[in-house]
Amino acid sequence: MEFSSKLLENAVNEVAMLPGIGKRTAMRLVLHLLKQPSEQTILLTEALTKMRNEIIYCQNCHNISDHTICEICNNPTRDHSIVCVVEDVRDVMAIENTRMYKGIYHVLGGKISPIEGISPSQLNITSLVEKVQEQKVSEIIFALSSTMEGDTTNFYIFKQIKAFNINVSTIARGISVGDELEYADEVTLGRSLLHRIPFESSIKSM
Amino acid sequence: MEFSSKLLENAVNEVAMLPGIGKRTAMRLVLHLLKQPSEQTILLTEALTKMRNEIIYCQNCHNISDHTICEICNNPTRDHSIVCVVEDVRDVMAIENTRMYKGIYHVLGGKISPIEGISPSQLNITSLVEKVQEQKVSEIIFALSSTMEGDTTNFYIFKQIKAFNINVSTIARGISVGDELEYADEVTLGRSLLHRIPFESSIKSM
Repeated sequence: MEFSSKLLENAVNEVAMLPGIGKRTAMRLVLHLLKQPSEQTILLTEALTKMRNEIIYCQNCHNISDHTICEICNNPTRDHSIVCVVEDVRDVMAIENTRMYKGIYHVLGGKISPIEGISPSQLNITSLVEKVQEQKVSEIIFALSSTMEGDTTNFYIFKQIKAFNINVSTIARGISVGDELEYADEVTLGRSLLHRIPFESSIKSM
Repeated sequence: MEFSSKLLENAVNEVAMLPGIGKRTAMRLVLHLLKQPSEQTILLTEALTKMRNEIIYCQNCHNISDHTICEICNNPTRDHSIVCVVEDVRDVMAIENTRMYKGIYHVLGGKISPIEGISPSQLNITSLVEKVQEQKVSEIIFALSSTMEGDTTNFYIFKQIKAFNINVSTIARGISVGDELEYADEVTLGRSLLHRIPFESSIKSM
């Protein structure tokens, strides 16, 4: 692309650095901002700058927060002995939306991935093991994505905490609610048979 | 979506104001910026702010430029009597990439669209008509999108300039190079038959 303006080119290149945004999309977004009143650009850039500079991670669960201890960790009605291990803040939001979980979280900040160069030391694993060592936890629930990286991370953490003799569980893998059986992949279908649940407990959650 | 942080929520909402970006994509982009060094956010916000505040539109053709007269209008080797009318800067870039056009441009800044509330007065039409009145122009080439809005805009401008007796043309509509005939829509195919060109002139451009 040959740009008629250096300022335009810089802006497009910076926006195109974002994941999943190519040069054409970046161009469309930048031209949109040019057509809008300049207040919109000010609001956008200020919100991003403020967020990047001032955001805090909860000292307890490493979730994104406005305070040093997040609202979930600060809530006395929640069960602080059950810890759900998740990848990032989006997973906390997804689980909170179900309104089914009353424990607290531990946000790892990613998954172990040799391909992307993410090693265990870059994740919040040490602080999780410490929590277990200090006997503050009775159950750990793994809620990572069901991928190679997710399974590797689960196993890595499990090896470090199994000596402490606490309950370690993982969220159920099975057929999604509303899915037709014939379209399910065989691994998922196989696991859902292997880990079948008593019918009476299945109708309780409906 | 329930956010764990007001700063995060603000940033996501502002990014989601951009066209074609939903809340989930905005969340992904914002979390990406949080994982990157803060320099990336600084570079992005500064590039956008600088562009929005300092960008100039060429006084002659209304194209985005770093100077009051853009490089194309300032180029003495180009034919200033041929004016190609386009919607926005992306069309200028697309035509420049063909390296087939040696005239200058006139950027309207949009198309007449009652549905989107864009009236002729919001576009750079007056200055185009003035150029024609001042007899600076020998040919006008319409290169707007082949849509209802594009055709309306062409016709609106044509009515205002036809009295001045200059050449007015529009870019050819026809089968795209490399396209199979059987998949072409009938309007395009019909027009390409109606506006057929001498075979000898068609092989010249190959």
